[in-house]
Amino acid sequence: APVTGELRCQCLQTASERLGPRRLAHVELIAEGPHCPVPEVIATLKDGRKLCLNPAAPWVQLIINKILRGPATL
Amino acid sequence: APVTGELRCQCLQTASERLGPRRLAHVELIAEGPHCPVPEVIATLKDGRKLCLNPAAPWVQLIINKILRGPATL
Repeated sequence: APVTGELRCQCLQTASERLGPRRLAHVELIAEGPHCPVPEVIATLKDGRKLCLNPAAPWVQLIINKILRGPATL
Repeated sequence: APVTGELRCQCLQTASERLGPRRLAHVELIAEGPHCPVPEVIATLKDGRKLCLNPAAPWVQLIINKILRGPATL
């Protein structure tokens, strides 16, 4: 089922170690809403693993902004 | 098929109008890679529509950061 159709929070815990932006293939941001009171960030690594990240962590905000700015800044 | 399995860029064009963060349910960030030379941002609105956003646009970076910070800042 698509994540947007789920009726509860997706992340039970978030990654404790920092990841470099080069390891991430794909990041989903899910806004808070009736299904979950907090925003959630689900990262897919280049090796296919999925991890929840803490949206409030400064390093998470930093790598998301690096992905947005593209390869020149990685 | 999952977006991460696609072998080409997903976005042919990006939205020309600005969206408020309250309209977004879900945002996918896809890092650049062998499938596509630029990062891509695919937003899903609360009404279910999907739109590509320009990752280099300051307003796009702003709403992504607002989603990360949660409801207190919307």
